[in-house]
Amino acid sequence: MTGTSSAQKLLESHRQQFPALANKAYFNYGGQGPMPQAALEAIHQSYEYVQRAGPFSGEVNAWVVQEANQTREAIASSLCVPRETITLTENVTVGCNIALWGIDWKAGDHVLLSDCEHPGVVATVKEIGRRFNVEISTFPLMATLNQGDPVAVITQHLRPSTRLVVLSDILWNTGQVLPLAEIVKAVHSHLSNSQPIRILVDAAQSVGVLPLNLTELGIDFYAFTGHKWWCGPEGVGGFYVRSDALESLNPTFIGWRSINMDNSGQPVGWKPDGRSFEVATSAYPLYAGLRSAIAFHHQWGSQQERYQQILSLSKYLWQRLNELPLVSCLRTSPPEAGLVSFQLTNKRPHRDLVQFLETQGLVIRQIHNPDCVRASVHYLTLLPEIDRLVSGIQEFLAKG
Amino acid sequence: MTGTSSAQKLLESHRQQFPALANKAYFNYGGQGPMPQAALEAIHQSYEYVQRAGPFSGEVNAWVVQEANQTREAIASSLCVPRETITLTENVTVGCNIALWGIDWKAGDHVLLSDCEHPGVVATVKEIGRRFNVEISTFPLMATLNQGDPVAVITQHLRPSTRLVVLSDILWNTGQVLPLAEIVKAVHSHLSNSQPIRILVDAAQSVGVLPLNLTELGIDFYAFTGHKWWCGPEGVGGFYVRSDALESLNPTFIGWRSINMDNSGQPVGWKPDGRSFEVATSAYPLYAGLRSAIAFHHQWGSQQERYQQILSLSKYLWQRLNELPLVSCLRTSPPEAGLVSFQLTNKRPHRDLVQFLETQGLVIRQIHNPDCVRASVHYLTLLPEIDRLVSGIQEFLAKG
Repeated sequence: MTGTSSAQKLLESHRQQFPALANKAYFNYGGQGPMPQAALEAIHQSYEYVQRAGPFSGEVNAWVVQEANQTREAIASSLCVPRETITLTENVTVGCNIALWGIDWKAGDHVLLSDCEHPGVVATVKEIGRRFNVEISTFPLMATLNQGDPVAVITQHLRPSTRLVVLSDILWNTGQVLPLAEIVKAVHSHLSNSQPIRILVDAAQSVGVLPLNLTELGIDFYAFTGHKWWCGPEGVGGFYVRSDALESLNPTFIGWRSINMDNSGQPVGWKPDGRSFEVATSAYPLYAGLRSAIAFHHQWGSQQERYQQILSLSKYLWQRLNELPLVSCLRTSPPEAGLVSFQLTNKRPHRDLVQFLETQGLVIRQIHNPDCVRASVHYLTLLPEIDRLVSGIQEFLAKG
Repeated sequence: MTGTSSAQKLLESHRQQFPALANKAYFNYGGQGPMPQAALEAIHQSYEYVQRAGPFSGEVNAWVVQEANQTREAIASSLCVPRETITLTENVTVGCNIALWGIDWKAGDHVLLSDCEHPGVVATVKEIGRRFNVEISTFPLMATLNQGDPVAVITQHLRPSTRLVVLSDILWNTGQVLPLAEIVKAVHSHLSNSQPIRILVDAAQSVGVLPLNLTELGIDFYAFTGHKWWCGPEGVGGFYVRSDALESLNPTFIGWRSINMDNSGQPVGWKPDGRSFEVATSAYPLYAGLRSAIAFHHQWGSQQERYQQILSLSKYLWQRLNELPLVSCLRTSPPEAGLVSFQLTNKRPHRDLVQFLETQGLVIRQIHNPDCVRASVHYLTLLPEIDRLVSGIQEFLAKG
């Protein structure tokens, strides 16, 4: 299943470049990815460079512009979009906030939100609702994990006043992968609305997992992070806005990176692209770390090859979990990505399981809604790691 | 002036811990401070720890909470305020945005802004004006550099509809230090307004320079950064909100760090303190770098001692510059902090001077409004560095 023994050796040598994978079996890629040594070194070297040539000098200031451009370029290339559509952010949530606060809301507008969104995004939408008298409703995606048609569920909940649909393309709790192309097509061609309905995707769990072509997808706003499946440093993420949706989005949090200035340093309009949503000084030395991490994965295989590997490994974990008494996977068919969520059927607290596993060097997390445990499987995962996780769960259950 | 030769030796040994100071004469502390080696190592060790114990695990997640608390505590202690009043931000501009977007604006409200604010903040205020039909006007601070009363100028420009005054306590362009205590008192006791007038300070140039007691000052909102005079890493700053102004400020950019969650992971209200303005995953390993930098300065002397040293050094630079023909300092009396701004009187472009000086290992910056050159002097600055800068300027002028 994981290929020939030479492929296995290649993966083992590739894995040795991730210090975090040396001393544990890691199943929290959906929380934060381990960084390759090359990325850690790229960051370290950037810090040294900044001190040597600056920190604030003509040379370093030019380097910062170049680093930001190269990082937008590396991200854009991975998502098959022009560099100008990319904003560098601190994390996926900031990207969601850029879209949510950037829309010119009118009282009575409607936001349609899935029932599986991250609490931080839910809280932002609620505050938007309060401030601008915008109506909010949710549509039931969680119930479509094993049956039903998510596209139909979404379109049934659109209203004439709907201006924005918010959803994740891979649900962070159940691991469900949504048919985003069909959703975009159905929402954008919905006819009862006098104004375009925009779609904001929380792509925290899909970037670095799915082969993506955002240009073909036609999505409006796509927020993501570098520190999960891309295995970059925490604190660098990105936001995509489709070129012809750019005009519709006003910058909210604003700084010198957002604007053009005249000869006397006065602001004269926005940067003409994704930079208009960037604010001010960031942890620039981390940019090289993210680029290095993205490039490092390519050394093992293409995004398509990595995705196939994720699928075969998560299927194996799902199968092994299904063999365990007292364990119930949320999905009744193999996962469509790397998130494998399951429940204990004997009512023992999931927190106790997660804490026990961490003492055994098995790193996994709890989810509160639905109440479950989530294992993340990346292309980096080894079959023996999965076997160890299954044994650890068995041991916990045997302790009674 | 810089004390005994033993004090000089102590400073030289202290300076050796800053790699950036080894190969240049540095005068851009107001742009970005050089990092002490201990801060660079603290960051490096944090990255190693996160990989060893996580990156995403119960242990590391608890460490992140602790790191954030300790960093808010270190900042709060330096500003003489309770830890709960501090928000960790990416930079000073984000802090200004938190205040500006957090006010419950009504059409017709008025914002009063100094004419010396940073373009990023000016752009934010303009966008606030556009979105909420808020009126904006500026008051002329630049003209009070050498004469006049800034307090009177501000109060003369208050209107019955004024809800917010925005200013810097040290002006980033001219280096003027404002009498913030008197300004706060005058604005807060202004009687023609039916609602409180809040004051937002862009403190980019004052934190790490002035001995500060924000509790005594009674300021409402104070935005600052760690990477300038504190010499911490770029990408970590902070925001202070006075306890009894907290209720008046709504979180805008929101994420899981802003909120409390119930047992099913649903958002149920804000964190009860400055954390309500924090968003989501940041570059946590940098927090240790900022704390290390703050602590490192204390090894040389108290904030009061460092400020005195800054004053004597900037006075020396100001005096030396005054001796040069074709050079005119903006101030007619010695600087009140570390920023020394000057102009060439022979119409040669300031950009050419800055570029020439950088080739000579003399790092300084240009300012566009007013058109001038700005040298930053920290307690770390050596007299021979100042002499080298003055010689460099003379050499440039002699090249004709």
